[in-house]
Amino acid sequence: VYVVNWDVEAAEKGGYDHFMLKEIYEQPKAIKDTISPRVTKDGKIKLDDVSLTKEDIDKFNKVYVVACGTAYHAGLISKTLIERYLNIPVVVDIASEFRYGEPLIDENTLMIVVSQSGETADTLAALKLAKEKGARVLAVTNVVGSSISREADDVLYTWAGPEIAVASTKAHTTQLVLLALVSLYMAEKKGTISKEKYDEIIKEIVELPRKAQSILDNTDLIEEITEKIYKNEHVFYIGRGMDYDVSREASLKLKEISYAHSEALPAGELKHGTLALIEDGTPVIATITQSKTYEKALSNIKEVKARGAYVIAVTQEEHKEIEKYVDSVLYIPDVIDELTSVLAVIPLQLLAYYVAVNRGCSIDKPRNLAKSVTVE
Amino acid sequence: VYVVNWDVEAAEKGGYDHFMLKEIYEQPKAIKDTISPRVTKDGKIKLDDVSLTKEDIDKFNKVYVVACGTAYHAGLISKTLIERYLNIPVVVDIASEFRYGEPLIDENTLMIVVSQSGETADTLAALKLAKEKGARVLAVTNVVGSSISREADDVLYTWAGPEIAVASTKAHTTQLVLLALVSLYMAEKKGTISKEKYDEIIKEIVELPRKAQSILDNTDLIEEITEKIYKNEHVFYIGRGMDYDVSREASLKLKEISYAHSEALPAGELKHGTLALIEDGTPVIATITQSKTYEKALSNIKEVKARGAYVIAVTQEEHKEIEKYVDSVLYIPDVIDELTSVLAVIPLQLLAYYVAVNRGCSIDKPRNLAKSVTVE
Repeated sequence: VYVVNWDVEAAEKGGYDHFMLKEIYEQPKAIKDTISPRVTKDGKIKLDDVSLTKEDIDKFNKVYVVACGTAYHAGLISKTLIERYLNIPVVVDIASEFRYGEPLIDENTLMIVVSQSGETADTLAALKLAKEKGARVLAVTNVVGSSISREADDVLYTWAGPEIAVASTKAHTTQLVLLALVSLYMAEKKGTISKEKYDEIIKEIVELPRKAQSILDNTDLIEEITEKIYKNEHVFYIGRGMDYDVSREASLKLKEISYAHSEALPAGELKHGTLALIEDGTPVIATITQSKTYEKALSNIKEVKARGAYVIAVTQEEHKEIEKYVDSVLYIPDVIDELTSVLAVIPLQLLAYYVAVNRGCSIDKPRNLAKSVTVE
Repeated sequence: VYVVNWDVEAAEKGGYDHFMLKEIYEQPKAIKDTISPRVTKDGKIKLDDVSLTKEDIDKFNKVYVVACGTAYHAGLISKTLIERYLNIPVVVDIASEFRYGEPLIDENTLMIVVSQSGETADTLAALKLAKEKGARVLAVTNVVGSSISREADDVLYTWAGPEIAVASTKAHTTQLVLLALVSLYMAEKKGTISKEKYDEIIKEIVELPRKAQSILDNTDLIEEITEKIYKNEHVFYIGRGMDYDVSREASLKLKEISYAHSEALPAGELKHGTLALIEDGTPVIATITQSKTYEKALSNIKEVKARGAYVIAVTQEEHKEIEKYVDSVLYIPDVIDELTSVLAVIPLQLLAYYVAVNRGCSIDKPRNLAKSVTVE
């Protein structure tokens, strides 16, 4: 039995100008609350009442991760981890596309659905479709007792607490850490991850709340950069691999609350069209955290710089040399490549927030949008 | 032995203001030239020297389609057909993402690479990576003797003739019909398509050149609509399923040559953020051709209309009732759902062209872009 612990008081702004800002600042605690009950002192993962056995996990030959909006971006990031650690193919799909497609799923499919509210209509419909086809469904949601939590075979809650702002922040980062724990849990059961790798990642996961806090303790530069870009009606976010996924989420944040037209692109695709839109002063926000693609992404940064873009890079502290090539750098603490997404999105949430403040927008309730999309 | 038949004369503008317009108008012939040598009078498909046997096809448990830019969009559309007719999962990936990812491919994988020039650096690198991992590689390209044609196990040429304009048009539609033929060919060999369905689609494919011509014979309305939207700096394209893929290609065309910031979205995702950007007069171009999602897409159209969008729909002539809900309709001839993409993109190529003309842009050689991206 789960008990709802939220109360009215907890949903107040507590000194912050907006719920969104409050919720951004709650992330270290939310991440900690999501991790703590699942990681034992000796580094073992306990996933609440999840009933997945080794036999179940061995049987899965495919994983679908289905969600909408911000939750979909968390799904995209989980793909890299699940494929890498379990060596089984992962398809990440938008719920409204999935349910009208012809997904090839059966009883050997694990379906993971992700939804903050647990009431997202398209995601709920996708869940039901997958169950009809015999898939095993694991839900990741923030709301105890929600429709999705009731329909799924297994449920894992992000312990983010109530999220009031329409633009999702702490729900996203807690989804990311929870999905990382799920992928590690399954890989350990399946025996497809080395003890060293497993221990290394667990150690890094446990450090995330402290590192997230260190980003939030020093936001002067973010506010300063915002002054330079907030009037732009066109903003581009670029990245490769997981950095592209982070870019998509960061771009959505900016769109939702500032109404600036931003777009995220895989950095390697710029030359196939969008480079034509880069002109003097166009803000390009490059997330560049993955060692495997660092040099390639840097060369994409140079391309946009050569066309006059104002480039802001998000990277780990270890990459100080990037200052030579860009206009501003938002550093995140050093962290293992697989987990950079949890930290890299935080300065970009703040950037979107301050842009919207400067533009005088209605932060917590953007025009045309609802918190929980319960219609199709 | 393939003989190159192109000559300098054939590459001239022949009375058109731009190569792009000439190439748009060459599509009926290009599609016909691509289909004709491959479809016999009794409706059998002959794929040149392609050596895929029934045994090879039965072995494939996964198909990857890898490409960049416009060719990537052709790949996205082929996914629906291959999955539907062969019942095996298809992963479509951007070449620059694929090569630095950790794709799960082996000797049971069919890899299809698509590249107009056959020299796209990232696509060539992806091809080599797939071959190293043991995949069978089929290339679809427009240039005989190109690097990609030489490295692939099998090659199929789009007989589009030389494409000079940077923005790809006839290469795209010929890629679409060729990929449709490939999927039908494999399904027939594998025995996963009924004779009735096969015959129906072949019959429809053969009709495509005539139907494409009928779109090109009547472009007054397209030019008229262009007058209304060309000053807008923000344009959105929406669609579901294959209509979303068409939207992505149409949006890329507009970006490349007009420098307007356009973006394509799965129509069902609008409510998860981008709806905030729709205001009075924002052009929204909705491709709505699939019977399965027609009603759902229509409800998305109503959502953007309610926020004041100027909506242009692209649909088949049979959907006349849509005129009640939108500002303008660009009709394509009635055609089977699986093949609407070949026709729906044509009025949208013309729309992009006329917007760029009105904006005084350099149509054939947009700023910052090269025809063939031979660097990474």
